[in-house]
Amino acid sequence: MPQPQALSALGTFLGQRLSTSKSDLDLHGRSESYFALTPPDAVAYPESTEEVQQILRICHEHGVPVTGWGTGTSLEGHALAVAGGVVVDFRLMDRVLEIRAADMDVAVQPGVTREALNQQLRATGLFFSVDPGANASLGGMAATGASGTTSVRYGTMRDNVLAMQVVLADGRVIRTGGRARKSSAGYDLTGLMVGSEGTLGLITELTLRLHGVPEAVSAGVCAFAGIEDAVNAVLDTIQMGIPVARIEFVDAATAAAFNAYAGTSLPECPHLMLEFHGSPDSVKQDSERFGEIAAEHHGRGFQWSTREEDRRALWAMRHNAYYAILASRPGARALVTDICVPISRLAQAVTETQADLSRASIPGPILGHVGDGNFHSVLLVDPARPEDLAEAKALSHRMVERALDLGGTATGEHGVGLGKLDYMQREHGDGWDVMTTLKQALDPKGILNPGKLVRSPGLSRQ
Amino acid sequence: MPQPQALSALGTFLGQRLSTSKSDLDLHGRSESYFALTPPDAVAYPESTEEVQQILRICHEHGVPVTGWGTGTSLEGHALAVAGGVVVDFRLMDRVLEIRAADMDVAVQPGVTREALNQQLRATGLFFSVDPGANASLGGMAATGASGTTSVRYGTMRDNVLAMQVVLADGRVIRTGGRARKSSAGYDLTGLMVGSEGTLGLITELTLRLHGVPEAVSAGVCAFAGIEDAVNAVLDTIQMGIPVARIEFVDAATAAAFNAYAGTSLPECPHLMLEFHGSPDSVKQDSERFGEIAAEHHGRGFQWSTREEDRRALWAMRHNAYYAILASRPGARALVTDICVPISRLAQAVTETQADLSRASIPGPILGHVGDGNFHSVLLVDPARPEDLAEAKALSHRMVERALDLGGTATGEHGVGLGKLDYMQREHGDGWDVMTTLKQALDPKGILNPGKLVRSPGLSRQ
Repeated sequence: MPQPQALSALGTFLGQRLSTSKSDLDLHGRSESYFALTPPDAVAYPESTEEVQQILRICHEHGVPVTGWGTGTSLEGHALAVAGGVVVDFRLMDRVLEIRAADMDVAVQPGVTREALNQQLRATGLFFSVDPGANASLGGMAATGASGTTSVRYGTMRDNVLAMQVVLADGRVIRTGGRARKSSAGYDLTGLMVGSEGTLGLITELTLRLHGVPEAVSAGVCAFAGIEDAVNAVLDTIQMGIPVARIEFVDAATAAAFNAYAGTSLPECPHLMLEFHGSPDSVKQDSERFGEIAAEHHGRGFQWSTREEDRRALWAMRHNAYYAILASRPGARALVTDICVPISRLAQAVTETQADLSRASIPGPILGHVGDGNFHSVLLVDPARPEDLAEAKALSHRMVERALDLGGTATGEHGVGLGKLDYMQREHGDGWDVMTTLKQALDPKGILNPGKLVRSPGLSRQ
Repeated sequence: MPQPQALSALGTFLGQRLSTSKSDLDLHGRSESYFALTPPDAVAYPESTEEVQQILRICHEHGVPVTGWGTGTSLEGHALAVAGGVVVDFRLMDRVLEIRAADMDVAVQPGVTREALNQQLRATGLFFSVDPGANASLGGMAATGASGTTSVRYGTMRDNVLAMQVVLADGRVIRTGGRARKSSAGYDLTGLMVGSEGTLGLITELTLRLHGVPEAVSAGVCAFAGIEDAVNAVLDTIQMGIPVARIEFVDAATAAAFNAYAGTSLPECPHLMLEFHGSPDSVKQDSERFGEIAAEHHGRGFQWSTREEDRRALWAMRHNAYYAILASRPGARALVTDICVPISRLAQAVTETQADLSRASIPGPILGHVGDGNFHSVLLVDPARPEDLAEAKALSHRMVERALDLGGTATGEHGVGLGKLDYMQREHGDGWDVMTTLKQALDPKGILNPGKLVRSPGLSRQ
């Protein structure tokens, strides 16, 4: 076990920026979700690509596992060092390197959070669109293949990362992609790295696509008598090609959680929350067209507004949904499901999920990015009751099986991490072997985030 | 040399659908471009995935090279079997398998051409957007990472392939991706296969994203005094966020070629050709806003129309550009360049290219998808004059070097094939090694389209 030698070599050049204090290890052994505390052996805080390269060279030489860490907001335990080793925390690599307004792109270090980036873009008339709710780091969002509320209009991280600098397992540094809007020059390594969850390399720089801040924005909320009405309104909206910028579903339990958490007074029934981007004329027209669709599906009280304060209040509520739901069962931890299905199957998936949840003994409010066919149930478990977690896992399992039966995916945006590993074989079949082959080719020693995403015969999980 | 055994095994199950006739071999040894005749040893015409699987199992066992063939419209020699072996022509796998209008996607076999698909979609109100000009096969377009005139609005093949069935080098069949609109379930194998030019597997089925046929379409053409004016009008249009569906540049020489080929009477100066998709109101507004921008850049005679016959005439002219330019030098073959640069560098790239061409002894009309920063020069060489080809290659070389100096790519949409292999090292650096590693992992015997895309130490090229 050469770990001490490796840690000593790392300490030599990182100094105080290699931590083995218990509090730091514990902090990097926790997740937002239900997973057990899994402290690493050390936490490194590099300040440059060269330092990341040096960390990987040393860990590669000594066979020490390396796991990247952004803001720790993963819901599937991606950043937990289940095989021990070194966690590389990118918080000190948090500079916006270059804003190229004419090309509508930006180069950033991986530790920049999406809110910090948008703050720095404020004067440019441009914004970075991907919005998973949490103020995650952009490196973590790329590694996870994150998306969120705006992806129905602007795409996911896959669509918005143009280029990367990546340090490979053996310390080689590569640049993937480029600044041209398109290229057919070889394999899409950028696309391969997005969503690879730190198993193929550590991202040390990203070039991101930006979008123009729309001239006008309208937002609104609409109540529905039942889930099916709300989902059918979504289907019609998408199929009619109304260019919604956000179209979010929350169920009655989530509306109740908002009311309790934020003092709002939503009727306790399903709702859609919407946003439209465009010109003053187009957002008016889009909002009105949606209003007509909502009315056909018995929507009630749809009001829309172009006032920024109304809009901010609406999305602050939505962004706090996870915390509002958590607060609805004090002391609870959450297991958050993340299935995504073809949009024609959305009503069936939500209705069957709702029926299953109604028979459960734990709460599981539903909300989601329904314009993409993606929704979550936040299953609330009492950490003191192991039977809660067992029930949550059984519910989650049935949701994933249902999604796969309907031609969907186990995870629309949260990633595989620890929580979805058991579904990779069913979802991908021999494709999972191909992923494992690619991983072995690029990381033959298996030091990069071992235990995640691909088959790991050396670990007990699998 | 076990080729005869392999061919005999293939003939046993393919019967007449394995051809070794000289005319067939010659037909599959030709390209649209300047490359020398390179006939394979045999041509196979499979009718099913199982047959493709069987072909690959046999060729894998015997170490026989396998190269996929769609319609043979590649401009970079992708489908030329430079190491001999079997060409797999997908023309008999040409069925549209399932149109799922509610999900706006379609499953097709690889031999379906884009025009045949759009023909079959006619009654659905949906269309397949990627339009490279040639009536290419969808399998070939995916393998090439093709794009074309509409990508500025609807994206390239990378954005429009949701899922694939692929037969790997050893005959394993995998399914990549799925029908959900998004997924974070592991490495994006679909993205890896798009643009892999048949070097990682043969595509036997594709699920493609469809778009709604717009309610209204307007199109127009505008003349400019000089290239810089035209390009600056493009920049302003993109940066103001006007959602052009197409924005195509042609230079004075191309306009002259149109006039000679199609009897049009364009002024012989640079032009932009545009199309807008949306509602009757929005296409009117977009066309007028473009008209204002064009006027600021000394554009002349911009007229737009929503009449289908006007629009068809305009795009028929554009789609025949390659043939019109070829006809402008009777008997000539073409070397078509394909650089793509960040849009802020487009004016510089076009102007410098134009200046370089003006000193050349061969013609090289310029045209391109300037909304993406991508443009082509169709360099016309007399096959009887080797010095023409040498000069074309030197011009092309300087264009690629210029693009890479400006942060661009050697190929925006035509792919690497044979023509751009020498630039992979400069464009990708160690990233090219990573591509080679991935290739070796998935095709250790190197039977899939050898000599293309990655380092091939066994071949004389490179």
